[in-house]
Amino acid sequence: MTEEKLPTRAEDFSEWYNQLVLKAQLADYAPVRGCMIVRPYGWALWENIQQALDRRFKATGHQNVAFPLLIPKSFIEKEKHHVEGFSPELAVVTIGGGEVLAEPLILRPTSETIIGHMWSKWIQSYRDLPVLMNQWNSVVRWELRTKLFLRTLEFYWQEGHTAHATREEAVEETRQMLDAYTDFAVNDAAIPVIPGRKSDSEKFAGADTTYSLEAMMGDQKALQFCTSHFLGQNFSQAFEVRYLDQNGQLQHCWTTSWGLSTRVIGAIIMVHGDDQGLVMPPKLAPTQVVVVPIYKTEEEKASVLKTAKDLKAQLIKANLRVTLDEREGFSPGWKFNDWEMRGVPVRVELGPKDVAKQAAMLARRDRPGREGKVSAPLADLSATIEKLLAEIQQALLDKALAFRRANTHETKTYDEFKRAVENGFAYAHWCGSGDCEEKIKEETRATMRCIPLDPSAVMGHAGGSGSGTCVLCGKPAKDRAIFGRAY
Amino acid sequence: MTEEKLPTRAEDFSEWYNQLVLKAQLADYAPVRGCMIVRPYGWALWENIQQALDRRFKATGHQNVAFPLLIPKSFIEKEKHHVEGFSPELAVVTIGGGEVLAEPLILRPTSETIIGHMWSKWIQSYRDLPVLMNQWNSVVRWELRTKLFLRTLEFYWQEGHTAHATREEAVEETRQMLDAYTDFAVNDAAIPVIPGRKSDSEKFAGADTTYSLEAMMGDQKALQFCTSHFLGQNFSQAFEVRYLDQNGQLQHCWTTSWGLSTRVIGAIIMVHGDDQGLVMPPKLAPTQVVVVPIYKTEEEKASVLKTAKDLKAQLIKANLRVTLDEREGFSPGWKFNDWEMRGVPVRVELGPKDVAKQAAMLARRDRPGREGKVSAPLADLSATIEKLLAEIQQALLDKALAFRRANTHETKTYDEFKRAVENGFAYAHWCGSGDCEEKIKEETRATMRCIPLDPSAVMGHAGGSGSGTCVLCGKPAKDRAIFGRAY
Repeated sequence: MTEEKLPTRAEDFSEWYNQLVLKAQLADYAPVRGCMIVRPYGWALWENIQQALDRRFKATGHQNVAFPLLIPKSFIEKEKHHVEGFSPELAVVTIGGGEVLAEPLILRPTSETIIGHMWSKWIQSYRDLPVLMNQWNSVVRWELRTKLFLRTLEFYWQEGHTAHATREEAVEETRQMLDAYTDFAVNDAAIPVIPGRKSDSEKFAGADTTYSLEAMMGDQKALQFCTSHFLGQNFSQAFEVRYLDQNGQLQHCWTTSWGLSTRVIGAIIMVHGDDQGLVMPPKLAPTQVVVVPIYKTEEEKASVLKTAKDLKAQLIKANLRVTLDEREGFSPGWKFNDWEMRGVPVRVELGPKDVAKQAAMLARRDRPGREGKVSAPLADLSATIEKLLAEIQQALLDKALAFRRANTHETKTYDEFKRAVENGFAYAHWCGSGDCEEKIKEETRATMRCIPLDPSAVMGHAGGSGSGTCVLCGKPAKDRAIFGRAY
Repeated sequence: MTEEKLPTRAEDFSEWYNQLVLKAQLADYAPVRGCMIVRPYGWALWENIQQALDRRFKATGHQNVAFPLLIPKSFIEKEKHHVEGFSPELAVVTIGGGEVLAEPLILRPTSETIIGHMWSKWIQSYRDLPVLMNQWNSVVRWELRTKLFLRTLEFYWQEGHTAHATREEAVEETRQMLDAYTDFAVNDAAIPVIPGRKSDSEKFAGADTTYSLEAMMGDQKALQFCTSHFLGQNFSQAFEVRYLDQNGQLQHCWTTSWGLSTRVIGAIIMVHGDDQGLVMPPKLAPTQVVVVPIYKTEEEKASVLKTAKDLKAQLIKANLRVTLDEREGFSPGWKFNDWEMRGVPVRVELGPKDVAKQAAMLARRDRPGREGKVSAPLADLSATIEKLLAEIQQALLDKALAFRRANTHETKTYDEFKRAVENGFAYAHWCGSGDCEEKIKEETRATMRCIPLDPSAVMGHAGGSGSGTCVLCGKPAKDRAIFGRAY
């Protein structure tokens, strides 16, 4: 497959993305419209993402559970905003075991309703709180315009759900999980994100407040990386989730939910990828190091492969994820291109001359050509590579952050704003009205991404983050928000 | 919840099981008939099972993937035995996004069909083979009689799917995975199993040969632990999965599939559990060690809790899964019962006298009362406990094996056979005809569980495994098989 060249990102970013997902065998189109198959290389990346997050969830006291896929249709109708938001997107099972069902069942688009229903049975007293749950599963939303990883009918994600005795504790949980996601995005995915609050029109159907992380892709468009919702008492009232407090009074719980999906794989592709293909952040890369043996004669082959196998053992011992490419019938150059396309952070080239001097050539995926190459002794190569992987991880983050900042503009006038959202983010004052938000969207195709929680993080300096006037209507501004065209 | 007493296993095994699953909070009934919710304690057990198996799958070269939940209804109709077997059990989505679908979609009851469809695109040449895939997901089968973990409309499992160039290689794969399951059952779940071949009437819809592991539960009934299917070319012909061989000839692939589900949790409960509750095999136990602090005064509490925390740190450092039960308002005796019910293998009791002599009392879950208790020095307690856990693991396996052997009878006459299957397994010669099999089932409610691959493993000795006559019709026997009433 690797013979056909990708379009460049500059030529056609969207096609570059679509073809790369297929070519790198991350995913493929399923026979059912809008569904995808996640192939081994894509799923290995997702497993690394899962482990990185699951560790953080468990460290903060959350336990994994499994609620069923099938939900009575009536459940979705109990919370009025929720039903408005999700009704148009439902898949409905009407036949089971050859018979028409008395009550149709929906495939979960998210699990707040069924979890609320069960919590009303399980939660009795303040002693039962907080309840801190998470589940890894897939959900179904009948989307019309789909794109592999970014928006599919069925997608893989985790959904965290928690119940608390007080409003304060629930709000704190919502923010704690946003922080956990931020830590993952920055330190594992090497993607700089802007944590912020969503506008009313963009928040989750049924939430009081939705927080999100917003990231800038390589085409300067915005991508919502994940969300964390403060649900107030909306679902606990709809499903009668109550507890007896310490004074013997019956109270409704305060609940939250938070989720991150396989669209993060799309973000990794679009933030780090280049015209040669994927660039995997070392911490999440399914293969961190590929060893390519180089030889001509059978004698060279024997010697090189022996050394390569010893090296592989050394790297595995250091807990590195390593592949030794022993495929026959492919030239070293072809293999270099193939692994570059797959985004493996470090390539080790090992030929007879390297073996003779007990060294290997290391090539960085993120720095093409001679600049990214260095020869290093075989003894203790694992330590050298560990250091190199850490450098690459940091370099990817730095580059992405510089790119986002270079393409984010603090705009005062609507003209400046319109120019900014053509090729990036506008950071602008806004009166807070849904009307202005809607009009901006109509006229510029840019949506309100979020109101940053820490304005200084946006530009890297405190900036003119004080008061101002709405970029559209000129009235006194309530907030300062990030706007951009979004996936 | 722990105040209400369970029925004993002798009184009502089925109710003992149902109540224990709820009481230990392994699972609960979902609002949709026949569906279940796996609660944190149950899911933690499943995660340990997943890890134990996933390690074995990856060590044998398999890669995880994710195929979609939704399958076009027409797919299921392409393999004639497959459609006969699964049609009555299908859940059908007929509405999506508010519109009636042109082609109804089924929720996967298993994924051979959609995988066959995709393989026909991905597999071109012998160089692409073997394809070794596995996925962890849930599937839906519209069962009428359900029981938590053992049979539910939606259940969690893994399904492995592989494609090979030759029949021999596919058969070998089928057997290799049966061996991997056996290793897991015996060494991790401490459940002795009989690996064997299914009769034609019991095999998977679409398989040439189905292998299974059969286990005996605490009520002497049989449970199919997992299956491994040699699918021949049935699915590769139905879905045109072909490859160009080294001579340039187009050949159909040979395929396999193999699966193990959350019913294994039911097996763990029913093999090891006793009248006090669960007994978890140490290798899979969500909590391997519980530390219960014992004190009366505040001064004692401070000293005991300090030592308990140090001990917990020591055990965590040794990679043991440990819980320190610091709950207020519950007596030590109540906590002992509670953790016994949850089946934690080792309880550490720590009181002021223990602290004074720098020791702790260890209590084995599998040996009730004084017999299972021993005092051990705190210094190096983790090593003592590791040794104890290994002993418990072995003791559970030994006990279960002795129980199965004591309740398995080599039967010559039909009278002996009928008595044997009242309370266990009959190991009997059989002519191989479906008619005899069916008649035996009608008359005794016992089904043909499997034809053991290694007859000597059944009774622990070679036995009279030679020729014989059918236990029902008296004709010359083709096979010797295990019969029993089954879950």
